[in-house]
Amino acid sequence: MIQKFYPHKKIFLITNNSTRTRQQILEEKLRSFNFELDIKYIYSSAYVSSQYVKQNLIKDTNQQEQSVYIIGQNGLKQEMKNNGIRVINDYDDTRDSIEIGSDEISSMEVDSSVCAVIAGINFSFTYRKLCLASLYLQLNNSTFIATNSDKYFTTQVKDRHMPAGGSIVNAIIGGTLVNPILIGKPERMTFEIMIRDHNLEEESLSKFLMIGDNLLTDVLFGNNCGIDTLVVLSGNTSESKAIDMFINKNMSKEEGIPTYVSPYFGFSSQNLS
Amino acid sequence: MIQKFYPHKKIFLITNNSTRTRQQILEEKLRSFNFELDIKYIYSSAYVSSQYVKQNLIKDTNQQEQSVYIIGQNGLKQEMKNNGIRVINDYDDTRDSIEIGSDEISSMEVDSSVCAVIAGINFSFTYRKLCLASLYLQLNNSTFIATNSDKYFTTQVKDRHMPAGGSIVNAIIGGTLVNPILIGKPERMTFEIMIRDHNLEEESLSKFLMIGDNLLTDVLFGNNCGIDTLVVLSGNTSESKAIDMFINKNMSKEEGIPTYVSPYFGFSSQNLS
Repeated sequence: MIQKFYPHKKIFLITNNSTRTRQQILEEKLRSFNFELDIKYIYSSAYVSSQYVKQNLIKDTNQQEQSVYIIGQNGLKQEMKNNGIRVINDYDDTRDSIEIGSDEISSMEVDSSVCAVIAGINFSFTYRKLCLASLYLQLNNSTFIATNSDKYFTTQVKDRHMPAGGSIVNAIIGGTLVNPILIGKPERMTFEIMIRDHNLEEESLSKFLMIGDNLLTDVLFGNNCGIDTLVVLSGNTSESKAIDMFINKNMSKEEGIPTYVSPYFGFSSQNLS
Repeated sequence: MIQKFYPHKKIFLITNNSTRTRQQILEEKLRSFNFELDIKYIYSSAYVSSQYVKQNLIKDTNQQEQSVYIIGQNGLKQEMKNNGIRVINDYDDTRDSIEIGSDEISSMEVDSSVCAVIAGINFSFTYRKLCLASLYLQLNNSTFIATNSDKYFTTQVKDRHMPAGGSIVNAIIGGTLVNPILIGKPERMTFEIMIRDHNLEEESLSKFLMIGDNLLTDVLFGNNCGIDTLVVLSGNTSESKAIDMFINKNMSKEEGIPTYVSPYFGFSSQNLS
């Protein structure tokens, strides 16, 4: 268990992943690296989205008179349901029609219970879903929530990136001119909810350290929260990039600036067993 | 025939429509209003896209060694083919899978003949198409062409807009960080190609008049081309909007400023018959 190395520290996992529930992140990801963590320390963009909806949008006490429309994977829908939020499209929508015409748009019944459209990466995204999101935003004045604005995922092969949640979100912005509330890193929201959940309001910011491999999300998140950051060079950020930043002072406004740099971060699985 | 009223004027139709060939625009749209026009005077964003590709991207003489990947309706594909451009996905792709996974992305063969990705409104847009566009842009360094950046279409019912070509284009930008070459109004390109096709280079700009109902596309197009514009109040622009612009001087940078305003524009079909 990772925390045996740091018995007096709280360790949180903050991830922009929106495709899995927290339980799935633990079982399918962390445990495959021999990491064990109580799910109350896991902050995924799906979980934080559910907390935002509960705190800001759900007004009725039994929570069943309001609902959300999800463009996302099943894990996002399940995380909402795990947190008591009704999902209006709680079924396998990969079998829905891809298309929609103006006649159907003009005449279809639009469920007035939908108070939010929540969009993240969806491998079965279609024009029809885009239109439904657009309808809820127009007719219900629903709140538009983006789990994250990540541009793309890398795959096993260089130069074969896959568009990520941000591209889905961009389509909805482009077709509705509505800007979303952004949930995941580099936004501060996860930090605020985490602090509240764990009663850390009184802790000095100097006692936090954000560790990650991505300047655009992890490090900028730390910067936005006013806490120190450690960037590791074993992933998204290369050594030459770090040299360019620190030796050549070549910095971009969009990227965060790390406090510390380390070539790697990890434990051997032997130590953890 | 409309030109009998203006025997000494050339009349052009400039439309951001990318879903029909020029012949279809004539047969399915213009003739339904009793308008007759030689298709050489019809400038759709599909046609202008084809001209851009031919002039700038197709290098081989028989044109068959290069191709384009289309995210769009059949009319866009057909307009490309009508102009001698090979379409790599020249089949009914509404039956393709919606999804694609990272394994397929990593291993799939990517046709190196694709020199351009052309995107417009596509009522069967899917995540799979988004990924294929992204692959061609990454691996072939293909040129990204957007037929237009229109945000949405209105439908028969108020507040039930449908996302338009710009939303599809936005998804691709969001997932690739590649900015497209924009073809349709309000860009100047249509004017330049029209001038060239009809040998109007020597004509004074004061002899042109752009007529339309949309400040963001039609009127701004006229402004960008340096020609006079007439906005009609029988469509997208309301009388109160015109009053707000001209009496209250409430102007937005993104909208064009018309030279003339008219409550309507048209011919009775009796006169035209």
